[in-house]
Amino acid sequence: MTAMAVTGIGQLTTHDPALGTLLDAALVLDGGRVAWVGAASGAPAADRVLDVDGGAVVPGFVDPHAHLVFAGDRSAEFAARMAGEPYTGGGIRTTVAATRAAGDGLLRVTVRRLVDEALRQGTTTIEIKSGYGLTVEDEERSLRVAREFTDETTFLGAHVVPAGADADDYTALVCGPMLAAAAPHARWVDVFCERGAFSGDQSEAVLRAGIAAGLGARIHANQLGPGPGVRLAVELGAASADHCTHLSDADVDALSSSDTVATLLPGAEFATRSPYPDARALLDAGATVALATDCNPGSSYTSSMPFCVALAVREMRMTPAEALWSATAGGAKALRRDDVGHLGVGARADLVVLDAPSAVYLAYRPGVPLVRAVVRNGELAWQR
Amino acid sequence: MTAMAVTGIGQLTTHDPALGTLLDAALVLDGGRVAWVGAASGAPAADRVLDVDGGAVVPGFVDPHAHLVFAGDRSAEFAARMAGEPYTGGGIRTTVAATRAAGDGLLRVTVRRLVDEALRQGTTTIEIKSGYGLTVEDEERSLRVAREFTDETTFLGAHVVPAGADADDYTALVCGPMLAAAAPHARWVDVFCERGAFSGDQSEAVLRAGIAAGLGARIHANQLGPGPGVRLAVELGAASADHCTHLSDADVDALSSSDTVATLLPGAEFATRSPYPDARALLDAGATVALATDCNPGSSYTSSMPFCVALAVREMRMTPAEALWSATAGGAKALRRDDVGHLGVGARADLVVLDAPSAVYLAYRPGVPLVRAVVRNGELAWQR
Ligand SMILES: [Zn+2]
Ligand SMILES: [Zn+2]
Repeated sequence: MTAMAVTGIGQLTTHDPALGTLLDAALVLDGGRVAWVGAASGAPAADRVLDVDGGAVVPGFVDPHAHLVFAGDRSAEFAARMAGEPYTGGGIRTTVAATRAAGDGLLRVTVRRLVDEALRQGTTTIEIKSGYGLTVEDEERSLRVAREFTDETTFLGAHVVPAGADADDYTALVCGPMLAAAAPHARWVDVFCERGAFSGDQSEAVLRAGIAAGLGARIHANQLGPGPGVRLAVELGAASADHCTHLSDADVDALSSSDTVATLLPGAEFATRSPYPDARALLDAGATVALATDCNPGSSYTSSMPFCVALAVREMRMTPAEALWSATAGGAKALRRDDVGHLGVGARADLVVLDAPSAVYLAYRPGVPLVRAVVRNGELAWQR
Repeated sequence: MTAMAVTGIGQLTTHDPALGTLLDAALVLDGGRVAWVGAASGAPAADRVLDVDGGAVVPGFVDPHAHLVFAGDRSAEFAARMAGEPYTGGGIRTTVAATRAAGDGLLRVTVRRLVDEALRQGTTTIEIKSGYGLTVEDEERSLRVAREFTDETTFLGAHVVPAGADADDYTALVCGPMLAAAAPHARWVDVFCERGAFSGDQSEAVLRAGIAAGLGARIHANQLGPGPGVRLAVELGAASADHCTHLSDADVDALSSSDTVATLLPGAEFATRSPYPDARALLDAGATVALATDCNPGSSYTSSMPFCVALAVREMRMTPAEALWSATAGGAKALRRDDVGHLGVGARADLVVLDAPSAVYLAYRPGVPLVRAVVRNGELAWQR
């Protein structure tokens, strides 16, 4: 591996407080890390050059919430929901049945396809959850497959109570044998804390058990209605409370005085025709906000962080700069990572070259595939 | 040019009433036209094969409303609008100044870049308007450049009244010398009929003059508020009334009992945070609805027909099938074309291969670049 200079950068977003946003900048990447950043005129020589011809460069997107290990098709459910027809399908349970019936090979093909698709849209770090197995064996193999593609794997055995099961009995299974099988393959534990899924007490049991097993905590909280999820996340020091669509003032206060990131998933509100979270209230109160795709076949089948940025600006009144920060540095904080989401010296050399003179274009040109090239770990990973 | 078979089609949307939507289908393309369509098992032999490996195939998108001949940058105006800051820029007039100052070469580079970008997203027929010149010379050269890229060129000298000009005087210029210079390069005449732009009487004068010069009529109507635009379009037999955001019941009735297409541009409502047109009222009344991008640097800088399809479903309650029809066959009707927008025998061989098993995915997976290959005029025009 030899040093590579990235030159001809029209606008460089570093998210490094000392550097900010630079015009006519260059980067030198070495050993998979950013070795030098500054004005193009002062760039040291390197073995190789990637000239981006005036394009904007931003840190690789960090998507801290995705459900990619699944099988089956739910496009008909989507079409019915959009037509306002009463929902008669099996929802998550449809996916669970198809996932259990799928071989490892099929699961692997699906994850690879979605991770590659996300990469072509600029995502260089992605979290992947289990949660469509719901048996010891199927949760364990879901995480084993996920771990082939990312270090950021999350055990979500507590995604939904399986058909016919008792919620408390199932919670005990999740906290016991299922967690024991999952933990070697997971960095995080997660729970869907919501009316109809897991109660506050059940959610607390799952997260405490995961923490005791050495995992970090994150939670699906306050998506469909108010609830105890956000409060619980802050109490347990979870890295992130995800969705945050229905927050009380106390929830906003709790987040803003904690290290728990509020991860917003506007793709889910888009795909379910629901009201969006109040990002401005969170930002104005000083909370840390991340954006994620929630990529899953039921409630948000987008893998596009640029699309989430555009929605965040249009629907949640984030500025383009705030949305970009949340889609990169915010996601890194939601994963408790300091090596990604920025392009200061020492950061992982993960970056996106845009077909645009500035990062504002990610929101200004919604739906347009603006990603021209992606560098990951200091090497060109994709180029149009 | 030799015959090409398109095989392995998981789902084929033909928009041909006799064929409908076919599973496990094939097409044979010859001489730039569709020569054969049917079940894969019955496909005749061809000289070449394009195997799409189970992907869905849809007609090439027809985008009947785009403003691509311009220069200058308005991303700062966009960012300020999204931040709710009072608008202090020059709006369209900023673009007019930059366009007048640009050489033909710069205009050509911009149009080519956007036409290519649209092609990569499946657009095989695109209308291009003038309207940022507003002098005889600059409107004429805008159309000359546009004509290098499409047959569907539209004279929009009546886009805005230039700074300092009298509206009636300017209308007379548009109807006289400007039209005379523009007409040889244009198929259509258009006018921005809106409070603050051109009145009903001025709009009628522009359209009647254009029709007398041999052009077909289309109109920007009822975007920002109620007005006479839609009524005028129907009276004059215009091919299309575009925007249709603020319609009276009488406007809906007039459209539904006419050959004038209602062309909706949800990208504009997305980018200006405005309420969307009532597509359901139009469809339920029997009006013909098209979708278009309105691609322009001020109020809708998307070139993505898939994004417009996703918005149409989410925000305007069109079904995925209705939205796809409007983005293809509807656009063809808005341009009075019967050779595009469908894939029956004899149609132009313009089609899109999706990275998805069905066309529903265009709405189901918003923001994801699902276009894997584009065939135009019977030849592979782009492939990922
Ligand atoms: Zn989720
Ligand atoms: Zn327009």
